[in-house]
Amino acid sequence: MATQGQFITCKAAVAWEANKPLVIEDVQVAPPQAGEVRVKILFTALCHTDAYTWSGKDPEGLFPCILGHEAAGIVESVGEGVTEVQPGDHVIPCYQAECRECKLCKSGKTNLCGKVRAATGVGIMMNDRKTRFSIKGKPIYHFMGTSTFSQYTVVHDVSVAKIDPTAPLEKVCLLGCGVPTGLGAVWNTAKVEAGSIVAIFGLGTIGLAVAEGAKAAGASRIIGIDIDRKKFDRAKDFGVTEFVNPKEHDKPIQQLLMDLTDGGVDYSFECIGNVSVMRAALECCHKGWGTSVIVGVAASGQEISTRPFQLVTGRVWKGTAFGGFKSRSQVPLLVDKYLKKEIKIDEYITHRRTLAEMNEAFDLLHEGSCLRCVLDMQVQG
Amino acid sequence: MATQGQFITCKAAVAWEANKPLVIEDVQVAPPQAGEVRVKILFTALCHTDAYTWSGKDPEGLFPCILGHEAAGIVESVGEGVTEVQPGDHVIPCYQAECRECKLCKSGKTNLCGKVRAATGVGIMMNDRKTRFSIKGKPIYHFMGTSTFSQYTVVHDVSVAKIDPTAPLEKVCLLGCGVPTGLGAVWNTAKVEAGSIVAIFGLGTIGLAVAEGAKAAGASRIIGIDIDRKKFDRAKDFGVTEFVNPKEHDKPIQQLLMDLTDGGVDYSFECIGNVSVMRAALECCHKGWGTSVIVGVAASGQEISTRPFQLVTGRVWKGTAFGGFKSRSQVPLLVDKYLKKEIKIDEYITHRRTLAEMNEAFDLLHEGSCLRCVLDMQVQG
Repeated sequence: MATQGQFITCKAAVAWEANKPLVIEDVQVAPPQAGEVRVKILFTALCHTDAYTWSGKDPEGLFPCILGHEAAGIVESVGEGVTEVQPGDHVIPCYQAECRECKLCKSGKTNLCGKVRAATGVGIMMNDRKTRFSIKGKPIYHFMGTSTFSQYTVVHDVSVAKIDPTAPLEKVCLLGCGVPTGLGAVWNTAKVEAGSIVAIFGLGTIGLAVAEGAKAAGASRIIGIDIDRKKFDRAKDFGVTEFVNPKEHDKPIQQLLMDLTDGGVDYSFECIGNVSVMRAALECCHKGWGTSVIVGVAASGQEISTRPFQLVTGRVWKGTAFGGFKSRSQVPLLVDKYLKKEIKIDEYITHRRTLAEMNEAFDLLHEGSCLRCVLDMQVQG
Repeated sequence: MATQGQFITCKAAVAWEANKPLVIEDVQVAPPQAGEVRVKILFTALCHTDAYTWSGKDPEGLFPCILGHEAAGIVESVGEGVTEVQPGDHVIPCYQAECRECKLCKSGKTNLCGKVRAATGVGIMMNDRKTRFSIKGKPIYHFMGTSTFSQYTVVHDVSVAKIDPTAPLEKVCLLGCGVPTGLGAVWNTAKVEAGSIVAIFGLGTIGLAVAEGAKAAGASRIIGIDIDRKKFDRAKDFGVTEFVNPKEHDKPIQQLLMDLTDGGVDYSFECIGNVSVMRAALECCHKGWGTSVIVGVAASGQEISTRPFQLVTGRVWKGTAFGGFKSRSQVPLLVDKYLKKEIKIDEYITHRRTLAEMNEAFDLLHEGSCLRCVLDMQVQG
């Protein structure tokens, strides 16, 4: 490749400071060092976590940075010692790494690899603890180890999943975050059984992926809870069988759900990031076995609470990150499932834009009608 | 039996009002009605739950009542329709019923039978929603469906476990509450695997039973946490391998334990009933899989809290009641285990008194040296 070993100058959406519009800039992307992979990003979607950090409410947010973590692309070049991918491979960057060597990876109990977290958590690469992005010599921080709002990005080799090259990248980019998170919350974290009653709080992308996962698991009732009744029609297509709008009732939502289900649901999923809703999601579970999974990400510093009696009487409180999927091992399998039409992706894509329209895409994210907006990163107009 | 179908007048320790010494009274015990069993109580132990209700802090506590829920005795007579026990059977009253017919029993997922809860929760019997105890015609409330601080008590047939008649009742009475709670928290609720690192907060009877259960499960390290260092020597005999006194350290206990265990424990158990300790017990768990089980009973109205991030990064928060054991089915098996010397009981009995010494026995309960005080109920002197 002509670019291999060279700096690449390309377009990227740079967040110079919190809560200010992103600016499309010419950014210099350094070649990958040992254990790193440089990826040409073809498509990226936007997720609420990008918006959260951009808003300035994330105390770990660092500026200037390049956001973005739900994307797909093609390997441009690899650094020393990288053996599992090579230039030309189709890949999905993974904010949750999988090194297969650390205590967490080897435990067999979790997908939360710890190998590069100390670097990605502070916006740098592990090899030299510096960034690979710069503008006129000024370093630009990475974000979540992925920074997919750039036409080229550099990721750790443990943070990139090689996928079937026949898969359409403008679709499977969604397998970088939201869809696996919802499916995996059901399949890996809760392990919902056939016949279960499921409650889903929040019918955005994650909530709908939870519904899809619950339907596939054979849930008998899938109750969607949202303050926007308009979301129900769409949710039916993903498996939601009943709809409850807490605003239309006087009773606390947990009591209402217990009444509707002869004592409570078997599994509940909080897909919003609201600590009060997390409490309701736990407390609407059936005594003796009901399990509540926190999927949404709450704002920093907020706390969940409940009476311990809720747990002593058999409810279980859990959470999930990336749906418990091991990223490098399992994202390729999800791509295969999509190709076999076993999981949806197209239905989550409600909008398409280009890199140049990044700020408009962020605005769309806050509209109820938008699930995922996919940006074509190579179209600059 | 001469007494069958008759009122029996016997001695009982009556709690006339909260926080006032119990009074040994002549109490009239009505014959058992349909689905009820009258039991001659030979031995009862005291538990902190008795003391909690007696203290007046339990908002569900009703006075006057007869406390007590950890005991053993012999069936004196049975009411209509009772088929599983008969006069002369050796039994352990069970505050957690097991009807084998309700939704909870049939779920296969919990021991929390709901059949008689609505009656036992308000100190009465289900059949006529009245009490079987009276003094000169004044009704005295039942407690936890057991009321074992009486020489005779009446319980629901779903709340009595028939045991091997060769088992020493002065020992196996402890299988009515504390010992199964601790063992079951490990075996049924947490399902601790061999090689696990376990932390136990509070080294009273329950905490020591947790240690015993963890040792039997093959835990590699069993860390006991208590503010009384004197408890460590005794705890070693139950399997505790290391001792930590939070008062001897400046660091928060959760941080200290994470440092001691390369990232956190696999399982933790809160055996005190303190909501701050419950938080610490969760937060000392290893990222990705650590599971914390609430065993202690917190005071009414108190709440647990933590950052949701603790759960999203893979920790699991659970609780247990009666250790998840199905009472009528499994208490007899625990008796058999004791007879085969597979579980300890004798070692938990630090004191012995008689019914007449009930108030002294309550005082002992608050001494660090006392685990269980067993009362001989038939000795009045």
